[in-house]
Amino acid sequence: MSGPLRIVLVSPRNPLNIGAAARAMSNFGFTQLRLVNPYDVAFREARSAVRAHYILEAAEVFTSVAEAVGDCSLVVGTTAVGNRDLRVPLYRLESGGALLNQHLAGAPAALLFGSEKFGLSNEDMSHCHWLLRIPTREEHGSMNLGQAVAICLYELSREHGAPQTGFEPPPPASAENQERFTAILLELLTRSGYVNERTEKSTEAKIRRLVKRMGPPAGDAETWLGILRQILWKVKQD
Amino acid sequence: MSGPLRIVLVSPRNPLNIGAAARAMSNFGFTQLRLVNPYDVAFREARSAVRAHYILEAAEVFTSVAEAVGDCSLVVGTTAVGNRDLRVPLYRLESGGALLNQHLAGAPAALLFGSEKFGLSNEDMSHCHWLLRIPTREEHGSMNLGQAVAICLYELSREHGAPQTGFEPPPPASAENQERFTAILLELLTRSGYVNERTEKSTEAKIRRLVKRMGPPAGDAETWLGILRQILWKVKQD
Repeated sequence: MSGPLRIVLVSPRNPLNIGAAARAMSNFGFTQLRLVNPYDVAFREARSAVRAHYILEAAEVFTSVAEAVGDCSLVVGTTAVGNRDLRVPLYRLESGGALLNQHLAGAPAALLFGSEKFGLSNEDMSHCHWLLRIPTREEHGSMNLGQAVAICLYELSREHGAPQTGFEPPPPASAENQERFTAILLELLTRSGYVNERTEKSTEAKIRRLVKRMGPPAGDAETWLGILRQILWKVKQD
Repeated sequence: MSGPLRIVLVSPRNPLNIGAAARAMSNFGFTQLRLVNPYDVAFREARSAVRAHYILEAAEVFTSVAEAVGDCSLVVGTTAVGNRDLRVPLYRLESGGALLNQHLAGAPAALLFGSEKFGLSNEDMSHCHWLLRIPTREEHGSMNLGQAVAICLYELSREHGAPQTGFEPPPPASAENQERFTAILLELLTRSGYVNERTEKSTEAKIRRLVKRMGPPAGDAETWLGILRQILWKVKQD
């Protein structure tokens, strides 16, 4: 179970939190840490990574969320919610953890944590298939980053009573293929006048969410990409 | 539930960990913090207690475990075990948490955490009715103090009962809308040269199956139809 989960910290500010996340990962047997634009490049020396420096050494650094989740067919974001208008499904950790474990039984997934101060941005969230929320009090929802990582990994490692049965959706396309799909679709829409410059940014996030919700199955991803490329070729040609 | 649990930190060394414990307590709605011989007497200023300074302000300080747990009818210790010869019952957090919650429904209890470096001593443990262990890897059992407190409080606050494993995908678009989607897509593909006359029939069925497998959610059907119509308009125009 522990292999295919990538813990992705987006714009983490404090190396001590990165180290604490690594320590919790080691406690629960997870090893793949990815960082998107960490504020402090010297994070590998964080003293808080007690006995988990091997995870910091191997951590991969990316400059965008899209790259960091490229090889994952499920991308899950974490949020303390508040009153943001979320346009993706939101699960409590108890049920979201079960869904994530189901997926991890067969395919890799990414679990995203936002920066200490701001959490995940709307743009970050547009890369997520769904979000999960640790059930903190509404009046004080925001957790310390290292503690949030620890709780999520505990839930994933927790022994569950009822055996897991039930519906198994086909594995969705990888985030990389979904991103390709989104990119070609956007180009098509720009060339067709569906997207205009003024609203381009928000349309991009909207289209990415549309594609995520639709979730083309992995086996069909190449076919869909072929279809879109052919239409784009036609539109460009004229 | 949150009233009668006292979180007792025995000989904590680092005020940042005390603050982190307080923050997690506030996140999950626990308020009673007790400290036995904290190393740093200035712990109340710990910056890590984000929005939880009210808990540090009210924290009680004791000079012995016996005094700190004097008004509790159940005392539970935490341990990373290792090969210590424990002479009290040991539960994993999942089952220990349930026992603790049962007790808390009627009477106060104390949950003890040892110092960062050494954990609870044998003398400390002799005050405990039983111990609980967060299910970390045996090879790396020892957790950060603030993370251990956070995980225990999460478990106590967790919703129990069968976790919701049944994934509920959003309802797919109506067959009528799927058929519209298929029809427009086919026209697009014919005009783009993806479909040729010889294979038209089999392609139509193939495309219909593709659209079914993808199953755009009902709420997005109109958006997808709008997107396809716009692209088709562009292709026709040229």
